[in-house]
This record gives sequence, structure tokens and C-alpha cells, in this order.
Amino acid sequence: MTTSQLVEQIQLKKSFLCIGLDTDLEKIPRHLLDDEDPIFAFNKAIIDTTHHLCVAYKPNIAFYEAYGIVGWKALEKTITYLNENHPEIFTIADAKRGDIGNTSTRYAKAFFENLQFDSITVAPYMGKDSVEPFLAFPEKHTILLALTSNEGAYDFQTKLIDGQELYKKVLETSKTYKNSENLMYVVGATKAEYLRDVRKIIPDNFLLVPGVGAQGGSLQEVCKYGINKNIGLLINSSRGIIYASKEKDFAKVAASKAAGLQNHMALELKKMK
Amino acid sequence: MTTSQLVEQIQLKKSFLCIGLDTDLEKIPRHLLDDEDPIFAFNKAIIDTTHHLCVAYKPNIAFYEAYGIVGWKALEKTITYLNENHPEIFTIADAKRGDIGNTSTRYAKAFFENLQFDSITVAPYMGKDSVEPFLAFPEKHTILLALTSNEGAYDFQTKLIDGQELYKKVLETSKTYKNSENLMYVVGATKAEYLRDVRKIIPDNFLLVPGVGAQGGSLQEVCKYGINKNIGLLINSSRGIIYASKEKDFAKVAASKAAGLQNHMALELKKMK
Repeated sequence: MTTSQLVEQIQLKKSFLCIGLDTDLEKIPRHLLDDEDPIFAFNKAIIDTTHHLCVAYKPNIAFYEAYGIVGWKALEKTITYLNENHPEIFTIADAKRGDIGNTSTRYAKAFFENLQFDSITVAPYMGKDSVEPFLAFPEKHTILLALTSNEGAYDFQTKLIDGQELYKKVLETSKTYKNSENLMYVVGATKAEYLRDVRKIIPDNFLLVPGVGAQGGSLQEVCKYGINKNIGLLINSSRGIIYASKEKDFAKVAASKAAGLQNHMALELKKMK
Repeated sequence: MTTSQLVEQIQLKKSFLCIGLDTDLEKIPRHLLDDEDPIFAFNKAIIDTTHHLCVAYKPNIAFYEAYGIVGWKALEKTITYLNENHPEIFTIADAKRGDIGNTSTRYAKAFFENLQFDSITVAPYMGKDSVEPFLAFPEKHTILLALTSNEGAYDFQTKLIDGQELYKKVLETSKTYKNSENLMYVVGATKAEYLRDVRKIIPDNFLLVPGVGAQGGSLQEVCKYGINKNIGLLINSSRGIIYASKEKDFAKVAASKAAGLQNHMALELKKMK
């Protein structure tokens, strides 16, 4: 999917919501455990009730990998279901991969070619030749970790390098990578005021913003500092939507939570006019 | 496996060789492609001829993930074969994972509990709460990326933070993590002289050293600067061993390449006496 197709969807749906499919067998409603594939059954139910309210889904790959082959099958079924029934949806493999050149190409093939995701999250620590193999795929997007929403972000990401925080160094250096127009960035919502500085370095790129809701970030603050002329934001919510109810009505309750966020987003988009 | 068991194996085999199982269907001998599971057939043949010459095997997970479920099955078969037939071998999942707390626990379960690897490589960018979930598993080892052997290492890892290179900051900060005695570190051999500085910060931990051979590092140099009283080194070689021949004799040729390195290692160990 191209960036302009994504922007079109955002305008159409008045939503820049991404729903995180962090599907955990210990947290999904008990009645689904009788299903042949409870992980996929849960995902399908969530997708069926929420797809008109969001523009993206983001399975975190750890949740699938934790179940071995069973998990990979559920992941394959989920992405196939999305691509076949909702090709207008932007799909994100939240995998946080990254390795030396040839090996990153393997990861890129796994997620871009075999599984047909539109994008993947990538860790920047190994630098240029670990990121560029992902950028080489046209119409695919590499979402680089810049400033994450966890406590550990302060260990290294906010430390000063040449008078500049490491995450800003990551933003600036990555702009010089080949095909850097295919970059998006993870910037956590728990540090919304940082978004102003982020936008000075990368005014145009899309940001994937976790941490709204469960992790305490404010949607309004994120929009205030992060929105650009193309909107340029994907706000992720996982637990706050998919685990809002553990009863039989879970998919309906998830939709109402998603609708709440979408309403809020529609208001923010109106402000831009 | 405990660290002292690993040291015992090194003394017994007079080897601190780790063989990288970066198994690529495009590079393995053609005749194996007729096998029901060519990836496992290749790995098994390499293991059968080399297990007495090395103390560790390291499948790079990207190579398996690239083949989807087929790849995961081959990975499962490989680790099961190793654990059942060679429990004395130290196994490394070269996965370079890392995510926020709960999610890292998922990755840890995938590799430590389900697949029963002894260790996993982890990226440090997200800090403490992305690493500690791996460290929580007793008798399992977390191999943190410090200084990698690729060009991109110079993008961030060698940049100065508070007058100290980022990779040294990673070494020092990680020492404060809970259960940090379960840490090992990746330090590339292409920068052997850096090992002297590394040893000032972490005199006792094991180092996993890629980049000897194919990437140009010298074994002698690595030993000179990196060896400690427990040896404290695992030297990895992948392509130089497993793809030394593409003919039917590939496993035999791999063994002779491994034997060459093991001989060299035995000499280095003798120097310590």
C-alpha cells in the first residue's frame, strides 16, 4: 500500500486508529477456546466488528511466536483474512527485527513477501545495513523504533550523543538511508511533548504512536504536537480495545471502544480544516 | 545449561567454537532438495560430523522464519535433535528480539520454554524492561548486542554518550539489570582491539564473537584481547564452515574446516596454562 492510499483511507474513515492484535490465549473469552483455532477466531471477530473504524491492524509477532507453529498458522490466517477481505487496511507486523544485511533481507522476505504485510517494525541499533534491506521493497514501509513508550526508553534512547538525544540521532541518520521515503517511526505517546522535536527532524513521515490509553498517553496531546498536513499519525491501541470485555459480547464492546477513539479522531481531523 | 557446564565442555573439547546454522535452501547442496525436509537434513548432517569439534550451535532465526511454517518445523526438529542427542551442546537462538516487558516475556517463552534453547540474542535499544524478562529464566542466557560486526555498527554503537561509546554504555547499564549474571554479549571480531576495553567493563561475562573468517576477523587477536580465566569466548563461524563445499561431501568438508578452527583454539588454550 502506498502512503497516499493510506492517507486517503484516513480521510475516508475519519480515523487514524491502529488496532493491536496482541492475542493472548489467557486473555481471550473462554468460550473461544473450544474453537479449532481460538487465536484466529478471536482476531476475525475483532476485525469483523472494527474494520470500518480503523485504518490499520498490528499483530505483535511475539504473541504468535510464543505458540510456535500453532501461532504462526494463526498469524498466516489472520493476515490472509485481512488481505483478502480488507485490502484497504494497512497491516503492520510488529516484529522489531533487525540483523546484518543478508539476514535482514530474510526477515523482510518473511513479512513482506510470504506474509504480505504492508510494513514491519525494525530496531535501529545495528544501523544502516540492518535497515536498508527492508527499505528496498517498493510500496512496503519500515517502521523504525525511535522513542518507545516503556521505562527502558530512558536507558539509551534519551541519552545525549553529540548534544542530541540518541532517538533524534536515529531520526536524522535514518534520513540518509537509501529509500528513506519508505520510513515511518515509532514514537511513544507517553512523551507527547517530544513529538514537537520529532516533527522538526521528520516533518513528513508517518509516526506509529503506541501508549495511548493503557499506557497513559493523551490522544489530544499527540495530535497537537504530531499531526502534519498528511495527518501523519497512526495511533495504536491494543488491550484497551481487544480486551475491553472478556464475555461473549467482546467483539461488540471492542467496536464501541474503537468507535470512541474514532469519534475523538474525527474531531481532531475537523480542527485541521 | 549453566556457565560452569559450558566452561567444562570447552576444557574437555579444547574448543570454544560455535557453528552458525544459517541454513539457506539456495546454498545447500542440490541433492538435499529431494529430502522431505532439506533444512533439517542439512543441519543434521552438519551436526553429526561437527558436534565433537564445537561447544555451541547458533541457528539464525531469520533463515527459518523466511520459510514460514516449513522453516519453523525445521527449526523445531533441529533444536529437538540437538537437545536429545547432544545435551552437552550450548544452543543459541540468534533472534535479536526485544520488546516492552510482557511482550519480551512472550519471546523468552517461545525460545527458552517451547524450543528449549539455552540462550537468545537480544537487542538493547528498548532498555531494561525489554531485557530483564529474558534474564528472569534460570540457567538460560541472554546475549545482548553490544558491538556488532557490520558496517552499520558505526551509525550508533560507537558514537559517544557522556564521553563513552554507546556500546560501552550498554555494557555498563546492563550490569545493573536484575539477574545480570545471566548476560553474555555480542562483540564483533572485526574490531578485536575493542575487546580490551570491553574486558575492562565486563571481565567475567562470556562474549559471542561473530566475524572470524568470512567477515575478516582474526582468531588470534580475539583471544589476545578477549580471553579471561573462564575462557569467556564463543567464536562463531557460519558460512566458512557450513558452505565450505556444495557437493555431496559437504558435511565432511565442514568438519575439516571446524577441525582447523578447533586446532587453532586448542593452541590458544594451551597458551593459558
